[in-house]
Order: sequence, then C-alpha cells, then structure tokens
Amino acid sequence: MTTEAQPSDLYYGDYLQLGRLLGAQAPLSRRQGSEAHDEMLFIIVHQTYELWFRQILHELDAVLQAFSAARLDERRLASICAKLERISVIQHLLVEQISVIETMAPQDFLEFRDLLVPASGFQSLQFRAIEIKLGLREQDRTAFSACAFYQRFKPADARYLRALHTEPSLFDQVDAWLARMPFLQDKHYDFWSSYRNSIEASLSADQQLIKTHPQLSADDKERQLAQLTQTRQQFDCLFLPEAYESQRTQGLVRLSHRAIQAALFIYLYRDEPLLQQPFGLLKLLVEVDEQLTAWRYRHALMVQRMLGRRIGTGGSSGHDYLRTSAERTQIFGDFFNLASYLLPRSKLAPLPAELTRLLDFHFSTLHRDA
Amino acid sequence: MTTEAQPSDLYYGDYLQLGRLLGAQAPLSRRQGSEAHDEMLFIIVHQTYELWFRQILHELDAVLQAFSAARLDERRLASICAKLERISVIQHLLVEQISVIETMAPQDFLEFRDLLVPASGFQSLQFRAIEIKLGLREQDRTAFSACAFYQRFKPADARYLRALHTEPSLFDQVDAWLARMPFLQDKHYDFWSSYRNSIEASLSADQQLIKTHPQLSADDKERQLAQLTQTRQQFDCLFLPEAYESQRTQGLVRLSHRAIQAALFIYLYRDEPLLQQPFGLLKLLVEVDEQLTAWRYRHALMVQRMLGRRIGTGGSSGHDYLRTSAERTQIFGDFFNLASYLLPRSKLAPLPAELTRLLDFHFSTLHRDA
Amino acid sequence: MTTEAQPSDLYYGDYLQLGRLLGAQAPLSRRQGSEAHDEMLFIIVHQTYELWFRQILHELDAVLQAFSAARLDERRLASICAKLERISVIQHLLVEQISVIETMAPQDFLEFRDLLVPASGFQSLQFRAIEIKLGLREQDRTAFSACAFYQRFKPADARYLRALHTEPSLFDQVDAWLARMPFLQDKHYDFWSSYRNSIEASLSADQQLIKTHPQLSADDKERQLAQLTQTRQQFDCLFLPEAYESQRTQGLVRLSHRAIQAALFIYLYRDEPLLQQPFGLLKLLVEVDEQLTAWRYRHALMVQRMLGRRIGTGGSSGHDYLRTSAERTQIFGDFFNLASYLLPRSKLAPLPAELTRLLDFHFSTLHRDA
Amino acid sequence: MTTEAQPSDLYYGDYLQLGRLLGAQAPLSRRQGSEAHDEMLFIIVHQTYELWFRQILHELDAVLQAFSAARLDERRLASICAKLERISVIQHLLVEQISVIETMAPQDFLEFRDLLVPASGFQSLQFRAIEIKLGLREQDRTAFSACAFYQRFKPADARYLRALHTEPSLFDQVDAWLARMPFLQDKHYDFWSSYRNSIEASLSADQQLIKTHPQLSADDKERQLAQLTQTRQQFDCLFLPEAYESQRTQGLVRLSHRAIQAALFIYLYRDEPLLQQPFGLLKLLVEVDEQLTAWRYRHALMVQRMLGRRIGTGGSSGHDYLRTSAERTQIFGDFFNLASYLLPRSKLAPLPAELTRLLDFHFSTLHRDA
Repeated sequence: MTTEAQPSDLYYGDYLQLGRLLGAQAPLSRRQGSEAHDEMLFIIVHQTYELWFRQILHELDAVLQAFSAARLDERRLASICAKLERISVIQHLLVEQISVIETMAPQDFLEFRDLLVPASGFQSLQFRAIEIKLGLREQDRTAFSACAFYQRFKPADARYLRALHTEPSLFDQVDAWLARMPFLQDKHYDFWSSYRNSIEASLSADQQLIKTHPQLSADDKERQLAQLTQTRQQFDCLFLPEAYESQRTQGLVRLSHRAIQAALFIYLYRDEPLLQQPFGLLKLLVEVDEQLTAWRYRHALMVQRMLGRRIGTGGSSGHDYLRTSAERTQIFGDFFNLASYLLPRSKLAPLPAELTRLLDFHFSTLHRDA
Repeated sequence: MTTEAQPSDLYYGDYLQLGRLLGAQAPLSRRQGSEAHDEMLFIIVHQTYELWFRQILHELDAVLQAFSAARLDERRLASICAKLERISVIQHLLVEQISVIETMAPQDFLEFRDLLVPASGFQSLQFRAIEIKLGLREQDRTAFSACAFYQRFKPADARYLRALHTEPSLFDQVDAWLARMPFLQDKHYDFWSSYRNSIEASLSADQQLIKTHPQLSADDKERQLAQLTQTRQQFDCLFLPEAYESQRTQGLVRLSHRAIQAALFIYLYRDEPLLQQPFGLLKLLVEVDEQLTAWRYRHALMVQRMLGRRIGTGGSSGHDYLRTSAERTQIFGDFFNLASYLLPRSKLAPLPAELTRLLDFHFSTLHRDA
Repeated sequence: MTTEAQPSDLYYGDYLQLGRLLGAQAPLSRRQGSEAHDEMLFIIVHQTYELWFRQILHELDAVLQAFSAARLDERRLASICAKLERISVIQHLLVEQISVIETMAPQDFLEFRDLLVPASGFQSLQFRAIEIKLGLREQDRTAFSACAFYQRFKPADARYLRALHTEPSLFDQVDAWLARMPFLQDKHYDFWSSYRNSIEASLSADQQLIKTHPQLSADDKERQLAQLTQTRQQFDCLFLPEAYESQRTQGLVRLSHRAIQAALFIYLYRDEPLLQQPFGLLKLLVEVDEQLTAWRYRHALMVQRMLGRRIGTGGSSGHDYLRTSAERTQIFGDFFNLASYLLPRSKLAPLPAELTRLLDFHFSTLHRDA
Repeated sequence: MTTEAQPSDLYYGDYLQLGRLLGAQAPLSRRQGSEAHDEMLFIIVHQTYELWFRQILHELDAVLQAFSAARLDERRLASICAKLERISVIQHLLVEQISVIETMAPQDFLEFRDLLVPASGFQSLQFRAIEIKLGLREQDRTAFSACAFYQRFKPADARYLRALHTEPSLFDQVDAWLARMPFLQDKHYDFWSSYRNSIEASLSADQQLIKTHPQLSADDKERQLAQLTQTRQQFDCLFLPEAYESQRTQGLVRLSHRAIQAALFIYLYRDEPLLQQPFGLLKLLVEVDEQLTAWRYRHALMVQRMLGRRIGTGGSSGHDYLRTSAERTQIFGDFFNLASYLLPRSKLAPLPAELTRLLDFHFSTLHRDA
C-alpha cells in the first residue's frame, strides 16, 4: 500500500473497518464497575484467533472447491499446495500465540473468570468448522456423545455443524483423488504386486540372516524371529483386502485400500517429476495435522497452568478433556503411518521405462522440440 | 569479540576447537561406501542437541549448587532465575529445532536407518541427567522397569545415572527451600487458617447462592450442589494432613505439605515486593517443565512421521512409547495445579500490616533515610 | 472458560462480538466483481496487527499511568515489568507474522494493489501512537518534514497525533524516574566520582601496559595509544557536563545527565537485590526497542519482495523509506550504548557497607525478626 | 534410532563422537583461575553455529554440484529445492538462537571479553564460505579493502577464501541456468516483445487516464505525469540492452540480461505446471537471502547491546560495521526487485496455445494414454 491521503480517498482505517474492529472489545469486568486489566488480553487473544480461523477457512474452502471439480485439474495442485502451506504457516503462529496468553498469571485470570461462565472456547464455531472440513468425524470426538457435543451450542450453530458433517471433507476428497490415481496398473505393470514382492523378499532375507547369524544366541534368534512374525502380520493387514477392511472397520486405518496404495506409490517414487507435487501435497496434510495436534497439546498445558485441576462447571477438569482430545483427533494419521511401509531406494523395484517416461518431463526435451 | 589476527594471537577457530568439532561427523553410510546425503543432518541435529544439553547442565549445576548452601542466600535468587530463564530460552530453540529434522523425508531416513541399530536417542546420557537433576524419579519412568531402563546403557553410564538418582534434585531443593519459608506463621498471624477460612467462606457463599437461586431448576440445583461437594473434597485433601499424605503416597501430589503451603502463600501474595522474585522462580520451574513436555510431544509426533508404527527392534513402537512418556513425566506438576486453589484478590484476606511492612521495600523510604 | 450453554447464558461468540468482528472483511476486489483470493489475507493480516496494537496500547497506557504518579510506588515495578514483558512477547509474534504475509506472491498482490491507492499502512494511527508513547519525537522522523507527515492523515487523526506529542512519553517518564533515583550520593559516598576514578585507573593501566609491552612494535604502540585517546575522549563526553550537554544538543545522546548516571549505577550494581527489578526494567526497554526495530527491518525486506523498487504514487520507493526509517528510530538507544561504559566486576569499586545494607533484603534476616 | 545396547553394539554416544564433541569446551577464564560462568554459553553458542554452518555447506555443496552438470537434469530441481528449503529452516533457527546469546548481560560478557582479543566471529571460515558460495563477491565487502579483509585470517585460511572466490557461485550457476532457459523465443513467439508491448500499453493507458481525469487539478496532473515518466525510464533500463548493461556495470543490477528475462517469464507465468518448480527455486533463493540479511541485522543489534559503541581494538565500532554490512550484502537482490516489473494477470498477454501445451502436464492425459 502506498501514500498521500486526500479528502475523498481510500483511507487505511476505513478500508480495514477499524472503527468496527477496535470497538468490539467490551470487558465484562469493566461493565461491572471494576475492570480487570487482563480481560482485554483475553478478548484480543481470542479475537485474533478467530480472525486467523476465518483466514484458514478462506483457504480451506478454496482447496475444497478445487478438489470438488468432477476431475481435479492437476494444474491446480501447486495452487492447492500454496494454500495448505499458508494454513501451516498460520498454524505455526497460532502455536506461538499461546506464549502471549501465558503472560497472564492464573490469579489475574481469576479476577474475571467467573463472569465468563458458561461461555467457552469450546464453542468456537469456526474452529469446529475447520476440524470438520479437514475431516474430523462425529465418532472421533470420543470424550462426548454427539448429543452432549451439540448441546453446548446455540441451536442454529449446532444445525450448522451437523450439516457440515454431511459434506465431503478434505480427507474424503483426498481419498477419492488418490483412489483414481492412474499409473498403478496397466497391462505390463502392477505396482501392488511389484511392491509386495519387494517386501516379501526383504522379509525373507531378514529371516535368513537371523537364522544363520553366527553371533546370535538361541534366545536372541527366537526373540528376533518373533518380531519378524509381528512385522509380517502388520504387512498382511496391508496386503490382504479383508484384513485391511477389518482394520478399517475397527478405526485403525481410515483411507480406502485403493487410496493407501496410491499414497504408498507416491511416497516410494516421489523422485519422479510428476509425483513431486502430489508428494508435496501429502506432506502438507501431515504438517497441517501435526500443527493442529501441537496446538491442542500446548493449549491443554496452558489451561492446566491457568486452571489447575479445578473442577469445571461441567463437572470435569477442562485440562484432562483437552489433553485427551489432543491424543485422539489425528485426521491424516494414515499418512503419518505410511512410514511403516517404506523401503529404502536400494530395495525398491525400478519402474518400467515406459512409466518413467510418462512421469517425467525435461526442459531439455522440450527445448529440442520447441 | 573483536579483530585483527596476528601470527601468535588467539584465533577464532582455535578458541572454539573447530578442528575437533568439525571433524566429529562420520556418517556410517559413507564408511560403507554409499553415503546417504541426509545422514549428515541426522548427526548434526543430534550433536547440536547434545551441545545444548551440555549448556543446560552447566546452568542446572550452578542452580543446584546455589540451592545446596546450608541457607540459600536470597541475594542469589535473581541469579538463579536468570539461569532458569536461559534454560527456558534454550528449550524453546530445541523445540523449534524439530522443524529441521522434519525436512528429512521418511524414505531418506531409511537409507541409513538400519546402520544405526541398536543405537538410540534414548541413550543420551546428558538428557537423562537433565531429567534426573530436575527431579524425575525412577518410578516416574512407567514404561520401563528400572532394570530394563538401565540395561540399555553401557555399565559405567548406567552406574552414573543410578548415582545421580541418589543426589538431591532441583525438585527436592525447591521443596526444602519452600518448607523453610518464613512469614507463614507467627504469634499474631497464621496463613494457613486464614486461607482456609477464606475458602470456607467462599464455598458456603456458593452453596447459599445455588440453594436460593430463583432461576435454577431442582435438577440444576442438585447437579451443582454435587459439584460443590466434589470441590469441597478436593480442598479437604489439601487441608487435612492425613488426606494430603495419603494423596502423596499415591503419587497424586509430590510436594511436602509445608512446601505446598508456602507455594500457595507466594502465589496468592505475589504482589508483595519480597515475594515477586520467589513467584518468578516458581513460574520459571513451570515453564521449564512445560517446555520439556512440549519437546517430548513434538518429538513423538516427528518420530511417528519418520517411522510410522514400524515395530522397533525392541518389539514396541517407538512412537507409542514416546507419546506415553510425554504424558507421564511432568516434574513440577504440583505448581501447575496450584491454580486449582487460588482465590481472586477480592476474596483474599489482607495480610497483617506488620507482615506487609516486612515484605515491602521502598526506594522512597530509603531515600528519606539515606 | 468452561461449559454448557443455556438459553439465556453468556455465549462465546457474543462475548467476543464475533458477528461484528467477522463481518468486517470487505475485499474491494470482490465489490468490483472479481475477487482476488489473497485480498482476504491482506485484510486479516492488517486487522490482527491492529488488534495487537490495541493490546500494546492497553499495556503501554497502564505503564504510563503508573509512572505518572507524583512518586512511583516501587511496589508497582514488578507489575510494570510484567506489562513490558507482555509487549515484548506480542512483538515477537508480530515479527513472526511477517512470514504469513510472505506466503503471498508479488503477482497475487498486484491483483488488487491498485484498488488500495492511496491508503497505506503508514496511516496506522495505533502504530503511530505506540511510537509516540514510547518516545519517538517529531524530529526523529527524518524522512519527512512534520508537515508532510501529518498531511497523510485525516485532519482529526493528525490533530490526535500532534496532541500525543505534547504528553510525556515513556522515555520522558523513565528519564525522570532515573533522575530522581536515590543512593547515588550522600555525605559519605559519591557514585559518580567513585566510578570516574575506576575508569581513570583502568585507562591509565592500559596506557602503561601498551607503553611498556616488550612485544609491541613502535607502530603498534602508536596505533593502540591513538585508540586509547579516542576511548578517553568518549569517556570525557560522559564525565564533563558541558561536553555531555553538547552531545545531547546534537542528538547523539538523549537521556539527561543525571539519568544516565543512575542507569549506569543500576547496570553496574544490578546484583544488589533492590536494583534487580530496576535493571529488569531497563533490559525490557531495550528489548521492546530492539523488537520494534527488528519488525521494521523485516517489514522493509518484505515490502521490497512484494513491490521491488517500484516507484510509489508518492514518488519514492516504499522500501527505501522503510529501510531508512528502521535505521533511525531507535528510542532507547542510550541504554543499548550503556554497554560502552561498563567495567568488569573485578575493576568495580565496592559499595560502602551501609549502602549495601540499604540495597539488600534477606528472608533470613526477616525470619529472625518475625 | 531404536533400542537395546549390547556389549559390541553401536552406541549413541560413540556414533556421535560425544567424547570429542563434549570435551571441546575450554573456557579461557577457567584456565586463568577464575571461571566466568557465561563463557561456556559463549562457546556453546558459537559451536552450535559452526555445526549448523557445516550442515548448510553440506547442502550448498550438493546444490552447486547438481547445477554444475553440463546440463542440469531438471528431474533434480525438486531435490535442489528441498536442500534450499532445509537451509532456510536452519537459518530461521540461527536467527532464533540470537535470543539465547541475549540472555547474557553485557557485564557478564565483560568478565571474559578481554581474554578473547583479537579473536572474532569475523574469522568464521565456514560463514565466509557460505557467503562466497552463495555469491558474495570481494567488491561487495564495502567496509574493507580485500587486503584488510584477508589479513584477519591465518594465511592458509585466507588462501582458501581467495580460491573460493574463483569458483562459480550459486548466483553464477543460477544466472547461467536461467540464461539457457528454453521457451522464451521460437519462430512464432517472442516473450520479450510480447511483455514489452503489454507494459507499453499499460503505461499509455495510465497516461491517458491522468490527462483526461476530470477531478485532478493541473498540479496533480503534472506531478503524476512526472512520476509516470520516471516509471517509464525505469522500464527503459530493463528493455534497452545498453541501458541495462550500464546499470550492471554500476552494480545496480547483477543478473545477465538474458537471465533476468527468463526470471521474469517464470514470475509471470508461474501457474504453468512446468514453471512451478523453477518459481519455487527463485522464491527459495530470495528466502535464503532474506534470512541471511535478517540474521546479520539481529546480530548487529545484539552486538550493540553487548558492546555499545565501545571502540574495538580495530579502531572502529563493531556494531556500526555489522549494521552497515547487513545493508550491503544482498546477493539475490535482483529477484527481490523483480516485483517492480510484474503485471497483474489481467494485463498479461496469454501464451500461445502450443507453448501452454508444452508447459503443461495432466495426470488425466496420462491416464488416457496409459
């Protein structure tokens, strides 16, 4: 923005509606006649959170819209990644922001805390919308029955949140996009059997090594072979469609079987030019999820510091609830766990030449054509 | 540092022993003939961690020594606080540093991971020493029997750690310092009964309010009275020495009864000039503890991202162990929980004038005297 | 905040006036029919800045009020320091926040930039108020005549800023508080002559060392003696009242002569219990100033990245202006520069016993009395 | 890393050579019989800096090697970007790390400062190597003659640095890579004339608007037309090869004319799939440069705080030197300034269809083929 105000010109404060913005802080303690100095901080901290949530939703909605096209135009992947990266940078700020609240001593909070009951950050509609749009499901809120959850909101807000749950989330859209990923199979190549063979070979080699190792004691061998069996079972859950579906039913994995195959393909062959952007996308989902969890956790510690184990008006310690919920609400956990199934490049079957060519592009090639 | 090297002069690189320092990175993958680019990062990240741990121990040892004096010279409180604050600033950096490791993709880690087995960050002797010197006890390592814990170290290192556990930790020293805090009682004043009276009055007023509230339904009243009973029981555990000791035996609180009284006195009357520095000390202990927990937690997420749920050579998922241990190892949790027992200033009994005078100092007074 | 919404109860969104807050983002590009996605970010970033400025002013006003008492109640120093520390933590966030703007590519900014002319962040009234209340004077804005500066604001806003300049700033108040500091002189002790003697002794010893050093060449001796002369002149400017006033007239120093003496006393004897809090105050002023400068600098780099050297509508490059202004506007620079005049403890004259006693307090002493 | 130490097994401390690493801190003050507590911090801070510099050089060398191939394999762009991003994340940590040094009070530094003369951080060979490998030239060190610069190093180190200056830097390599970028011209399309036409059209439209604007006074028109002339001259310097070379000779721009055209092409058409990665690369160069400058600036402020304007043994204030050098040493400034020449998408000439096709790739297309 640049300079020189003239009577009729656009003015910084008008553009930003600062009159409205800076008139929206009304400490309850002031209205009650004895203002608690720190209530202003409490209000400003929550208001800046809400402004950032608005921005995150702005980005998230654009991402969801891009994914909702009948067929995602892959040209838009870079733009989607830029938006997710912006969300991640904002989240980093939100975690840092907890340090600002922590400049408030518990006793200073007590000066106005009782005035706020029963309002609660729990009721942040935008935060709930972010969770849901990312992919949090009703059943993921283990600390609450759905009913108890919605009761804490105004009826219109509860309806809004319920409705959100019926729309496809980012998780759903990414799952569908992965599931329709090409490349995994054609008449000459089948990624899934190729990968499975590599894994089998690797596990068999390990088994042979243990059995014939001259320095291992019988006990050691037994123990290590038992571990190998466990690892093999873990892979069976990935390879056998029924076993995979059974895990999915139990909530141990969430991605569809087809989607997890595509995700693994991307992780394993991410050096291929055409897979670099998709790999970037999956990495950003993990980062957004990790930051959300980090924020929940830091937030829970801050609440403990501010409130101790004080029994809330709801009969439970806010801190325990928050900490537990930080544990449970990973959305893109399947991508975190992909690391379990990777192979070092040296043990990875090379792609067939024709596929490599398809996944590649060269300026130099183009240059010759152009 | 300033300028102009002359032949025989002190030289930056010599002072810092850079030859030694920068010659201490020997990637195993290089020795095996095919260097994995990212192993250097892995080494440097862990080496910088260890250098910072060395600095933290340098500060911690100075703090412990100051506390170990037969009688802590209170002149040194500012110096102790400065050291704890430095530790906290370093810890903030250690948490940030996790972002650097996260620039390594899981598959790049796989290129050299198997070479490192069975070495583990678990074996960082300095990190263990920090934990123990702060106050972590053997029984706090719930994921392990003490025996299983020590087995992972070289015998000499295990002996060193066992010996550390027999020395007074910072927790112990702070407890003792609080327990001998003056002011809490003299012939005219007894803080503990005064505080207890204020709490009783406050709870009774709440009870009266609920019972006579015209807008509460019978159900509401019943529920709220039940909560009040819970709160009262919580305070009983604080007030009744037997109840308190029983909680302590169960590991629910750790501070001695006398120490928690002094800590509450400091939290409640921290505006008094002589209590400002002690309050600052307790706040810093909470911060150091919070940052340690935050680091453990971010670290556990990073491990999940890097290793997934891969079954480790020890037969258990590293991630699950780390996450659980982040939960369990709060050392100064009692100070976090002090917030449960605070009163707003308006409900706080004023200190007797004579005590206020003792706790106060004024430049202006001095000025008149001087 | 805690839980359970009931019809008539306080609700999170109402308390924070979220309707008002989240309805105050009106991208101009949207009104013009083709919304630029990133204008929302631009608005939100500036709005959160303004909310934080509001909070900083809230703290700053409380600090100014505490200082404005006919005589500062030193009991309030801890509370003043807590407020300055909070400002510093917020500033750290404001610097971090620049990373969020930097997720906007220059070309995306171009999509709506022309719509904003001539509005400018320059016109942030709150930012200007913070500068002025901290102590920035009209003559410190070297890039502008005062007239050109005020012209960019609406007349009422310009009047408001002019009026602010007539009120005592934090710099003024701190100067006055230091100038009336006791301890510096009584019938038995004169800090200023004691300090001056120590400096003289130290410089003479250095001179002797150079002159008699067996390994220094004649050239080296000459050069080092010339430097010593320069150092001596620097101290003369501090010791000789006329020389000091002349420097002050030229704008090379800003503190009154009496105040800089008190500040030095605090820096030198900060281990004394009664000086710990005053030392903390001066340190925080330096931190607040440093963060303000750091923010200006990062901001200037960001503007260069966003606009290049594009000639603004005001005929000058925004970036060059901003970078220059980052250089010139240190407010508490005198405290930064105090480091020039320090002495190591070993060369410091001990305080007379009676003064040490006055500056000290001991729990242990009190214990015996109590 | 995982678990279970056995006698002959790899051990964490051995792998990291901790014996060597943690034995490399030898405070001079300790050797002189009275250890200054904070000298350890001073050593550790500089040692961690040096370890991170080692890592940055590890990444930078890999990047330089990738660029040094006769023809850069564009498959490696993602890997190059990942390395630059890692450098940027490390730099962010290096800036944060300044907060750790700032926990040392100036007077505590004085306790050991004189022992270090004339060693200086100035002599960090690795830092100098990073500067040079990025592209800093001898003539960019405006504060020194080359001779004075090298004199401060041991002869062998000076020779090493001189030799580094003769090798192609990252700046050089990026310039060459841009200069050979295809796409800019073929028989049907010429980017440079197309871009120039768009700029001409835009400037003419602005001129027409000013001349015929009903609300502008004659004065306003004159002033705004003068500005337009200035802008036009700025573009002439870009368009006219002689004017551009003349600017280059004066050091106002550094990129070759061909390279700046390619860079502009990338900035303007970065939405094209094949340009997304190159755009990412240029953005990272700007980030690395910005962080380097930010670090220099924060560092200069810290030095002022620690040393004031104390006259160094070299006869000049360290702080002034550092601050000036922060101003002068932007390496990739031309990319910052590219923003000056951008056009909004709406005023941008569309690419010819054939070129768009070349720059594009679609999974969907591939899908049909596969």
